[in-house]
Amino acid sequence: SYNMAVPDAKTGLLFRQMFDRDTCTYTYLLGDRETAEAVLIDPVIELAARDVALLNQLNLSLKYVVNTHMHADHITGSGLLKLLVPGCQSMIAEASNADADIKLKAGDIVRFGQQELQVRSTPGHTSGCVTYVMHEHSLAFTGDALLIGGCGRTDFQEGCSETLYKSVHSQIFTLPQHYALYPAHDYQGLTVTSVEEEKKHNPRLGRSLKEFVQIMEDLKMPYPRKIDASLPANKVCGLYNLPDDLAAILKDAS
Amino acid sequence: SYNMAVPDAKTGLLFRQMFDRDTCTYTYLLGDRETAEAVLIDPVIELAARDVALLNQLNLSLKYVVNTHMHADHITGSGLLKLLVPGCQSMIAEASNADADIKLKAGDIVRFGQQELQVRSTPGHTSGCVTYVMHEHSLAFTGDALLIGGCGRTDFQEGCSETLYKSVHSQIFTLPQHYALYPAHDYQGLTVTSVEEEKKHNPRLGRSLKEFVQIMEDLKMPYPRKIDASLPANKVCGLYNLPDDLAAILKDAS
Ligand SMILES: [Fe+2]
Ligand SMILES: [Fe+2]
Repeated sequence: SYNMAVPDAKTGLLFRQMFDRDTCTYTYLLGDRETAEAVLIDPVIELAARDVALLNQLNLSLKYVVNTHMHADHITGSGLLKLLVPGCQSMIAEASNADADIKLKAGDIVRFGQQELQVRSTPGHTSGCVTYVMHEHSLAFTGDALLIGGCGRTDFQEGCSETLYKSVHSQIFTLPQHYALYPAHDYQGLTVTSVEEEKKHNPRLGRSLKEFVQIMEDLKMPYPRKIDASLPANKVCGLYNLPDDLAAILKDAS
Repeated sequence: SYNMAVPDAKTGLLFRQMFDRDTCTYTYLLGDRETAEAVLIDPVIELAARDVALLNQLNLSLKYVVNTHMHADHITGSGLLKLLVPGCQSMIAEASNADADIKLKAGDIVRFGQQELQVRSTPGHTSGCVTYVMHEHSLAFTGDALLIGGCGRTDFQEGCSETLYKSVHSQIFTLPQHYALYPAHDYQGLTVTSVEEEKKHNPRLGRSLKEFVQIMEDLKMPYPRKIDASLPANKVCGLYNLPDDLAAILKDAS
C-alpha cells in the first residue's frame, strides 16, 4: 500500500486523521502496510462514505470499526460501515453496555496485521470509555477522557469527575512523556498533543483532584445538542434507532 | 523543546497542523527542536491568539510568518502576529504583489534553526502562489495549488487553469512519490495526502491538460464569500484595510 513519509512509514503504520466539522469529531484510519488490514476509530455516520473512499484509495481492507465509547454528540458510523464493507466487525467496551460484534475489556489487544491497540479502561466521561494505546508507535487515542487542554464532560451519561481524574492520571499520564495523544474531539482546530504537554499545561487535569472536581462542577454546560438522537442509536452501534434521514441512508446501503 | 513521537521527533522537527473551522483553512506550525525557532504557514487572523498560545506552550519563538499566497477566503494572521510577537517577520512571494517584510522568489530557502523550506513557484490559482518543500522531512505545503483530490479555483484573482496544471505537474508531481502533501484547505475533513495518491487519484489534476481546463471551466463556482474584505487586507499582510471588528483586535494588540 501507499508509502508516505509522515508520520510512520518506516514502522509499517499508515495513519490518517480526519475531522467532522459539524461535531468537531476526529476519526482515525490506521492501516497495516504489510497486510493492508485497517481499522477506523470513532467514525461518524454522515462521513462513512468518505471513510470508505479513503480506505479504497489506499487499498486497505477494513477489519474493525473501533469505538472509544458510546458517543452522545454524534451517531457512530459503525452500523453503516458494516453494510458498506461486508465482513468488518464493530467493537466497543463491554462496560459501555452497547451492542457490538466484539466487546472489549481492559488489557485486550486489538490486532490488525502487525499492528496492536492496547485497550485501557478510562471511565469517568462515561463508564465505558477506553483509551487505545499503540506502544510500537508511541501514541494513544484517548477518546473523550483526555482532550487537548481539556476533557470530556462528566455531567451526563454515567459521568463522574473523580473517576475521570483517576483514569487519566493512572492510565494516560503514566505513559511515557513523548507519547502522542489523539483525542476524539477538538473545538479549537488543534489536532494532537503529548503526555508531557498535558501533564504540564492541561488547565483542568493538571491540577489537584479537588480543584478538578470543582472546575467540572462549575462548567454548567448546556444540554448536548444531539444526545437524544445519538444515545439510542449508539447503544446498538448505529445499526437501528436512527433518525429518518440517516435510516434512509442505511436502507440504501443494505 | 517538547519531544513527541509523531511525526518527526527524530529528525528535529516539531510539526503541528491546525484547522480553521469557519473557512476550512489549515495553518501549520513548524519548530526546530534544537534552536526553538519556529514558523507559521498560512495563519488566520481570528486564530492568531490560539497560534501564539501553542507557540508559548511549546517554548518556541516565532521567526517567520509564511504565506503560500494572497488568500481570498480569509485574512492572514501575519499582521496581528507581528504585533503579538515583536520581531517576527512576514513572508510572501514577490510575485503576489502583496507587501511583506521579506518577499520570496523561486529557489529561495526559508531557514529556521536546522530546518529549511525550499520555495517553488506554483502559479495558476493566483500568480503569486508558492509551494514550500522540506526535503529533509519529505513533505511539502502546497497552498491552494494542490488540494486533496482537488485544487484551488482559477476563476478569480489572476487564476489560469493551464498555468496551474503546469505548475502542479512540473513542481509538485515531480517530487518523490512518498512525499507528504499538506494543503491550505480541505472541505471534507481530510488532513494530508501524498504525491503518489494525487498523481493516481486526483480527479482533476490526474487527467490531461485539456480535460483539466474543461473541468475548471465547468465548475461555475459562486462568488467567494469573504473575497471583498480579504484581498485589500491581505495585500498588506493583514496589517491595514481590516473590517471594523478585526481592526479593533489589532488596535488592542498594539
Ligand atoms: Fe463523548
Ligand atoms: Fe487561495
